[in-house]
Amino acid sequence: MSKTRVAVNGYGVIGKRVADAVMLQPDMDLVGIADVATDWRIMAARGKAPIYGATDDAAHAMRAAGMDIAGTLGDLISAVDIVVDTTPKRVAAGNIQRYRDAGVKFVLQGGESHETTGHSFVAQANYESALGRESTRVVSCNTTSIVRVLGALHDAGLLASARGVLIRRATDPWESHLGGIMNTVVPEARIPSHQGPDAQTVMPELDLVTIAAKGAHTETHNHYWTLRMTKQVTRDEVLDAFRAAPRVAFIRMSDGLVALNSTIELMRDLGRPRGDMWEVAIWEDLITVQDDEVYLTYQVHNESIVVPETIDAIRALTGSAPDAASSMRMTDATLGMTGDFLTPSPRQPE
Amino acid sequence: MSKTRVAVNGYGVIGKRVADAVMLQPDMDLVGIADVATDWRIMAARGKAPIYGATDDAAHAMRAAGMDIAGTLGDLISAVDIVVDTTPKRVAAGNIQRYRDAGVKFVLQGGESHETTGHSFVAQANYESALGRESTRVVSCNTTSIVRVLGALHDAGLLASARGVLIRRATDPWESHLGGIMNTVVPEARIPSHQGPDAQTVMPELDLVTIAAKGAHTETHNHYWTLRMTKQVTRDEVLDAFRAAPRVAFIRMSDGLVALNSTIELMRDLGRPRGDMWEVAIWEDLITVQDDEVYLTYQVHNESIVVPETIDAIRALTGSAPDAASSMRMTDATLGMTGDFLTPSPRQPE
Repeated sequence: MSKTRVAVNGYGVIGKRVADAVMLQPDMDLVGIADVATDWRIMAARGKAPIYGATDDAAHAMRAAGMDIAGTLGDLISAVDIVVDTTPKRVAAGNIQRYRDAGVKFVLQGGESHETTGHSFVAQANYESALGRESTRVVSCNTTSIVRVLGALHDAGLLASARGVLIRRATDPWESHLGGIMNTVVPEARIPSHQGPDAQTVMPELDLVTIAAKGAHTETHNHYWTLRMTKQVTRDEVLDAFRAAPRVAFIRMSDGLVALNSTIELMRDLGRPRGDMWEVAIWEDLITVQDDEVYLTYQVHNESIVVPETIDAIRALTGSAPDAASSMRMTDATLGMTGDFLTPSPRQPE
Repeated sequence: MSKTRVAVNGYGVIGKRVADAVMLQPDMDLVGIADVATDWRIMAARGKAPIYGATDDAAHAMRAAGMDIAGTLGDLISAVDIVVDTTPKRVAAGNIQRYRDAGVKFVLQGGESHETTGHSFVAQANYESALGRESTRVVSCNTTSIVRVLGALHDAGLLASARGVLIRRATDPWESHLGGIMNTVVPEARIPSHQGPDAQTVMPELDLVTIAAKGAHTETHNHYWTLRMTKQVTRDEVLDAFRAAPRVAFIRMSDGLVALNSTIELMRDLGRPRGDMWEVAIWEDLITVQDDEVYLTYQVHNESIVVPETIDAIRALTGSAPDAASSMRMTDATLGMTGDFLTPSPRQPE
């Protein structure tokens, strides 16, 4: 079977990670990378795949800066089966017609609206409904985490409703000089915040409300949930549901992982590329059960959590893996994902 | 009627504010201030009231530093009716026997446990049960805000249960050089966090669970609540309950008060001493009603919110005001508290 030819348009926080992940997949070829930058951000991509100017102006500026580029976006998309568009929010929507005209499939990211593709994607929840489609949208980092975690309890028949408070990171580390640590908290000016309805684009059956705020810190999101169960549950039932779920991993206060920065440092110590954490990290020892209510706290590495979903979305659209399980197994093994960072677990890739 | 003679032991974040507030009360005399510091912190108190060494060692060090002190804590407490102990967490518990031996009443702060006095105080909730007692404990800033806000809905017959997420400030501004902006979030290592049970020391009938975390910022706490009502309610019913409640004030995203720092800056612009906000600031336009659920967000100025409660606690213990309403009216008027910072309201002091 021939490999899927993949282009990445937009070599930013997500795009560079997707490009690296594509290179790890045995069934994919990274044909090229398109961007508009002329500085370190795109220079760091040299050697991975040919680089293209995402616009004519960008191609001109890149050549003027002495960069060796292979052409423009038009040249790139004519040579691939699928484009992963990781350009900034709302830029991708403007690229759709070009992809359609070229007859290539495309994956958008969560910055775009559901309507741009008519399909929103989280591998474990709705891989099959994306099979063979022209396009899909991998939902945002927060939404992905919600579908993974609440989906696990829903699939186990346990979840009645969910009310969550999301403390988002202020800005990404690479652009902290533009905003950085704010020394304030900024409540999202609307309740419910957008993440709840966004998760319902993937799992419409979820009864959930999210309230969000931007925190003062720069790395990772942090969610606090009050969950009502369909019945009185034991803590073990909840733990078992998470143990059976893909792409969530336990962390523990009792292991000294007491704050967001502890986990971030652990990822570095584990040798994760860029310190990435593709799994949702749930504090196991904070999972608290009281009658039919469950309280829990988890951490979302916003820079990387959607990378495995994007790889699976490529397979779904191109039909190169017939179901979620076979695609996710390949993705998780190549990245080295785990169900527990410090203790071997059955879900650890063989 | 003679004035109540008050001592403040511990001239820190709370103590200095209580001292200033006592000086504003027509029925109180600030007899003296005790502390252990020899630097700017206590030097700034000169001229307000005589200063005492809180221990013999402190008195010695203060005299050695050239400070003009009036004696030690023992001298001070023999000259007053009541001591407000605002020393650091758990130091106050060690002072209780001295107060008892001297036959003076005493008010402790929320850093001490409920058991130290057997009574926990929020003026609007249980002033009358503190009348004539030897001592009480003014609950912490977070707990005070919870009792005020949830108490308002409870008193209106609306509140069935409350689940809250509390994003606490990392550290106080004055000691930010010791900890400061942390660039992380630290979940409290226990669910429920202590604030829920603490609020129940004042209002045992509240059905509430709190989940808390330390944020990265340095000024004010921020609470996010999911409330279940006793019935389907309208937004106006909720607003009316808050409009009728003491010591909560509305703020609005639509007025440009979009984050914690906006409100902090507004307090400065309003000429509040030290930028204090004694009221709980509830985002009116974030109050969201969905069937029998209410979602809301408010801000707590941890440095000052317990100051009015402490003033009322003095009156309750000494019996100098017969009920909560008459004490609170005096306290609120002397401080200049309001029900709405930007729009005149019926509760604004005449």
